[in-house]
Parts: sequence; C-alpha cells; structure tokens
Amino acid sequence: MQLRKMELKTPKGTRDFPPEEKILRDSLISTLKEVFELYGFSPFETPAFELYDMLSSKYAGGAEILKETFRFKDQGDRDLGLRYDLTVPLARYVAMNQKMKMPFKRYHVGEVFRDGPVTTSRYRQFTQCDVDTIGASSLKADAELIALAKRVFEKLGLEASIRINNRKLLSEMTDFSGIPKDKSDDAILAIDKLEKTGKDGVEKELEDKGIAKSSIAALLSITGVKGSSAEKAGALKISIPDSIGLKEIEEVLGYCKALGVEAQFDPSLARGLSYYTGFVMEVSLSDSRVKSSVCGGGRYDSMIGDFIGKGSVCAVGISFGLDRIYDALREKAAIKKTVTRLLLVPIGNFDAASRIAEEFRSMGVPTEIDLMDRGPSKCLQYAHALGIPFVAFMGDEELARKQMKLKNMQSGEEVVCSVREAAKKTAEND
Amino acid sequence: MQLRKMELKTPKGTRDFPPEEKILRDSLISTLKEVFELYGFSPFETPAFELYDMLSSKYAGGAEILKETFRFKDQGDRDLGLRYDLTVPLARYVAMNQKMKMPFKRYHVGEVFRDGPVTTSRYRQFTQCDVDTIGASSLKADAELIALAKRVFEKLGLEASIRINNRKLLSEMTDFSGIPKDKSDDAILAIDKLEKTGKDGVEKELEDKGIAKSSIAALLSITGVKGSSAEKAGALKISIPDSIGLKEIEEVLGYCKALGVEAQFDPSLARGLSYYTGFVMEVSLSDSRVKSSVCGGGRYDSMIGDFIGKGSVCAVGISFGLDRIYDALREKAAIKKTVTRLLLVPIGNFDAASRIAEEFRSMGVPTEIDLMDRGPSKCLQYAHALGIPFVAFMGDEELARKQMKLKNMQSGEEVVCSVREAAKKTAEND
Repeated sequence: MQLRKMELKTPKGTRDFPPEEKILRDSLISTLKEVFELYGFSPFETPAFELYDMLSSKYAGGAEILKETFRFKDQGDRDLGLRYDLTVPLARYVAMNQKMKMPFKRYHVGEVFRDGPVTTSRYRQFTQCDVDTIGASSLKADAELIALAKRVFEKLGLEASIRINNRKLLSEMTDFSGIPKDKSDDAILAIDKLEKTGKDGVEKELEDKGIAKSSIAALLSITGVKGSSAEKAGALKISIPDSIGLKEIEEVLGYCKALGVEAQFDPSLARGLSYYTGFVMEVSLSDSRVKSSVCGGGRYDSMIGDFIGKGSVCAVGISFGLDRIYDALREKAAIKKTVTRLLLVPIGNFDAASRIAEEFRSMGVPTEIDLMDRGPSKCLQYAHALGIPFVAFMGDEELARKQMKLKNMQSGEEVVCSVREAAKKTAEND
Repeated sequence: MQLRKMELKTPKGTRDFPPEEKILRDSLISTLKEVFELYGFSPFETPAFELYDMLSSKYAGGAEILKETFRFKDQGDRDLGLRYDLTVPLARYVAMNQKMKMPFKRYHVGEVFRDGPVTTSRYRQFTQCDVDTIGASSLKADAELIALAKRVFEKLGLEASIRINNRKLLSEMTDFSGIPKDKSDDAILAIDKLEKTGKDGVEKELEDKGIAKSSIAALLSITGVKGSSAEKAGALKISIPDSIGLKEIEEVLGYCKALGVEAQFDPSLARGLSYYTGFVMEVSLSDSRVKSSVCGGGRYDSMIGDFIGKGSVCAVGISFGLDRIYDALREKAAIKKTVTRLLLVPIGNFDAASRIAEEFRSMGVPTEIDLMDRGPSKCLQYAHALGIPFVAFMGDEELARKQMKLKNMQSGEEVVCSVREAAKKTAEND
C-alpha cells in the first residue's frame, strides 16, 4: 500500500513533536533534570512495556487504569502491556533489588501510555517526570521535594503556588465529621474536587454516596477553614486535638522554613490516587492561563511493601506535568524552529567556507552551511522562515582575509567581521 | 496477584537502566545531541507506535521486519504497531508536511522495538540516534554527516575509522563482473559480509545464489583492490572508466578534505538495507573491544518519494549505535552510581545544615543531605557504597562559623572549610 492511499496521520491520541515544539520541550526537560540532580536524584530508566501480570497486580494501578492499558503478546506468547505510569515499574525494580542502599533517590523521565478518552489535554502517549525517594521514613524527604519543586519553577521563570496536606489528617477529619470508615475514601476523593466542581458539586457527590447531611456539613466546614497555614492548623487543632496528620504537617512546614520555601497548608487537598498514606502536595501556577495542577505527589509508604509482599517500604515522590508546564512556558517563550544560530552562505568557494563552518562548530556555534547551492536572497528567505538569527556571506574577497559579511536577521544590521567576532555576536541573546 | 507469587523480571529482551548505567548513557546522549546541534540539526520526536498500515507499507521496512513488529489494537479497534525504526515515522512526517522548508535537518533519539531473537547484544527495545538531512541532493550533505560523525567520536574520546562507498559503484561492479541484473542486490548483500564471514563464506553464498564462478572471482577481485583511497579509485577506474559511483565517491572525498576529515574508500562496503541509492558509510572503533560498526548510514533518495507516491525526495542519514558506543565508553569510564557530589551530615542541627545544602545547590553542586538520621560512620558507609566523592560533617561549632569538616572520600584528606571553598573542591575532577 502506498501512503497516498493510506491515511496520513499519527494514531489517535498521539502527536509528532516537530523542532518548533521539541526544542522547548527538550530545554524544559533539561532544566528539570538539572534541578533533580542538584538534590542528588540520579537518572533511571525501565522498558516501555512490562509483563501484564505486573501491571495488573492488585497493588498496581487498579481496575480503572487496567481498562486503559494497551495489551499485546510477544512471539513467545508472553502477555505484555505498555506501562501506564512510572511508579509500578519503580516498585518492581525495588522489589527485584531489595539489597540496594537506601535512600534510593531516582528520577525518571519517560513515556507512558493510556488507551483512554482523548481530549485537547489528554493524550494516549504522554511524558511523565517522576522524582522519588525510596526508603526514607523521615518527613525531611517530603520537605526536600517541596524545595525541589520550588527551585524547578523558579528556574523556569514560572510563579508557583505550593499547597500541602496529609492523608492521615483527611481520615481524621472524616472521622470527626461522623463519616463511616468504609465511606472515608469516597469522601476524601469527593473533597479533592472542591476547586473543580465547587461546593455544590461536592455536596451532591457526597449525598449520592449516601453520606448524612450533617456529616457533609461538618466535613465541608472543617476542610474549609480559612487563614494562614498556622491559623488553619490552630483552628483544626480545636476540633482534632491529637491529630497525627496535623503534627506531620507542622513538621513538614518546619523543614520547609529551614529550606527557605513556602508551602500553603490546604485541608481540602486530597490528590486522586488511593495509595497515598500521609503527606500530599500539589503545585499550581499563579501567573499562567494553565489552571490545572502542574506538579503533585505525596508519600506512599505501603504500596511497594504490598507489592513485594513483605513489610513496608517507605516512599515519597512527586511528578511533573510536562505538557502543562510546556503550555505555560509557551505563553512566554519565543518559538524556535531551529537550533541553528548561523547560516553560512558561500559565494563561489564552498570548500573554504565549509572549513570556516567547522571553525564555528569548534567554537560551539550551531552552524549550517547552505547545502542547496542557493543564491544569497534564497538563503535569506530560508533563514527568515526558520528564524535563524544570523547569516554570513563569504565571497572570495572575504575568505582571503578570513572575514565575512554578517547580517543580524532581527535588526537588519550588517557588519564585516572575523570568525572570532562573528562567533561572539551569534552567542548574543541566545 | 502479589509480586512474591509473580515472576520478578522485565519482559524478555528488555532491560532496566539503574543509575550506574543511565548516568553514562545520558552523558553519551547529551554529547550526541550537542554535536548534532552544532551542525544545525534540530530535535524531533514521533509517537512510540504508528498505524500498522504505515509500518507495513511496501516502502517501509519490508517483510522480515514486519515479522518482528509488536502489533496491538486500541479501544477503537485500530490496528497499531510499535515502531521498529525512526526512518519510517520520518517518511510519514515528511509526507504529511510537504510544504516544509528544505533542507529539513533533524535528529531523533528514540526507543524502537523488535520482537526478534534475543542475544547478548540484541534487545527487543533499544535506542536509535538518527541524524538525517531531507531535501538536499548535493553530496555536500553526505560529507557533512561524515564530519559530524568524526566530531562525535572525537568528543567521546574514541578512535573512529570511517569507511565509505557508493551503491551506484556496487551496481557498476556487479555489472562489470557479469552478474545478471536480477541477482545484483543479492551479490551486493553478500559482499557486505566479507569482514564477517570471510572470502570463503561470501564465495559460498554467491554460489548458492546461482552466480557463475567467473563472475564471483571478478567481483571479489574488483571489490578487493588494496591501497589508499586514491589508489583504489585509480585501480577501479581502469575497469569501469565511466563509473558514476566513483565520481560521487571522489566528490564526497573532496568535501571531506575541505572539512578536514578523513574517510577510507572501501569498495566492499555495502550496508545491509536495500533502500540506499548512493553514498553509504560505516564507522568502527580502532581502539576498542567493540568490533561491530558503531555508526552507519547513507543516501536513500527514493524511499520517501515512493512513500508519498510522487517524485523523489532526496534524503541522507546516519544512525549511531547507542548500546555499542556505550559498551566502548564503559571500557574507559569509571562507573558512577550517583550524580551526588557531596553528602552533608548534620550533627545535631538538621535545619541549619539543610539551609547550607540549599546554598550548595544554588552554587550548582549536586548535594544530598542525610535523610535517614544516621550517625557519621553509617553516612560514610553510604557515601562509600555509592561513590559519593565528598562528605561534609556539620556540628554546631562548624555551623556557627558557616564552616564544615570536608572529607575527600578518594584521598581520605579532611579539611575544615567554608561553603564556598567546599563548593570549589567538590567541582574538582568531576
């Protein structure tokens, strides 16, 4: 079959990233990696697919996510699935390497796959950027991840607002509100939607779950306390004087203060996933059109242990939403269609000009030389279309003096200069 | 099912990359990207899977590779397959974007998947690093890729030997040897194995293909000419005076000379893939135990046009063998198990020490602080096991003076110094 008779497209829910998107994505990923490493997290990778048994283990993603798992077989009839997150493969790796030194601090930037509904912001292949500390029970590890998140958004030039809460406190609050134990998880997941669906929506969902009106009122009132983090904690302490969750929140906020980072205590923050056991956090951007959370996570002390089938393995981790952060950056960043900083246009003497191109490359300047035997005006059109910031013309006369006519495509300015001077100019405003 | 009852492993033919491997792999990939960008190639990405129709198009990988394609369906019953290379997705992208500015210079580092036999050096998921120039018919583009490859291996500190040939010359040589047109491709693919199977093996394969003994002798003699590139070209010119292939080789070698890069003309080099139309190249390492080729490619001027179903779209590209280059680097590089340069051990005052940890991070030093509340000797054990090069102990006395006791784990040397002095020391021999 030829392509002209074939549909020319990527599979539903997937995308190509041409240079004008990939350049910014790569620079975002390299900022993330740089900050992760400053905190001593090392890179890590697992295969794109796993044994299906692993992905469908009851301690893994759960029934909902299994429905969205791409499943296939290899030629040995082994049942396989594309990974739907990076946490289950991490749990498998820890289970396979139980003698490793703790804490195991790793980050993982990788593709994950979900065969679910497709919307403008939901894809079937997307990139997750996870940072996890395995094996540390101390809440110092939780606070460190808050500092890391703050530094990431600072480096990216985005104004981040960090909210934290604690699952133990959420359980204590549902207890306090008289919600039966078996409905506590439902209530917590409903409360998590306060921002999205509003008070009325949450009330309705809680009623639908069969929770008494008086309990709903109590829960909405206690999770809705206002004020500074300290004021909220003070108000909650009156209702739940021996709260373990509150104590943990205060401990984390204490470490945050030492680290010089601010986080807001938000008693209504729950995070969707059921495996969190204590600290949870979420980051949103205050100066962007991107309104959803751009980073989130928490402590999940039982999941890996359950997976291994013995004891508990402490774990705390956060995940950055690459697509949303990319969208926020795009609001501000100029789009680059090429990495090229300089287009060399040889007039008559290709060989000599290509030697000069190599000199520019040795000086670290991303340099193209015209490969199409085009004239000066066609080359200027190409540079303009791609946004190449500098074009250098080299005739025999210039070459004889190792000089060139350098044109700044933005200002239109033209100067005659040496290779070294040109290299310096092309590095400006990069 | 719990993991203890489940097999704890990655799927057959796949691997985890723990930090001790991933750190070196990432540094290798970033060197590749850096050099690709110096030549004006921009990053590019496509989905991990494609519509199966595309992958199985007759202009794509062919029947052999289709047998090795992982195939599955999405919930909309669409037929999908994991990509087996990065060239077919590139062809699809070019076909979907026919108005793009030429040349389109892109690189793509991505995972590919083949459900084939597994050996110590053949995996079912592996990384390809492709660099292609689309739309340039000039052999200047071919020579540029040779210069790029040379610079990659120079930067990596590996001694590379680059061989080139031309498919047109290979056809001319089979013609000259009296091999029938319909057996020319078979003969070329057999000649490609000269190094692997030796002269006898190639002779046998050619005989099995029904090629006359006299033709075999002629072909082995003409592809076996010895001497410098110029001497070989001279010798071949006597047999094939009007060779277009030889003319192209001489043109490429001329551009190489201008670029200051040496490539050896090897008349027996063919490259396995059938879609090459002219220039082919291959790189091997002369100072490594890795004997197979670590980079290879060539010009494929008809493939994309065939795909689109109209005209021809010029293309030339090379691909780097990440796993093999990694193996060659591992022979020389010290294994790093962590990115951490400094482990801070607070003695008594965690909060103050964590403030200092943030200072180190702001100065660009990858810094861990002990999260496990361990004593000094346990911390030293941890640093030793992970190969963290520096450990700093901070008691109240040191903290009061913003100093620390810094231990160089390699030399054993201990000094009392300031934050700034310590940051400087940790950057040494990085």
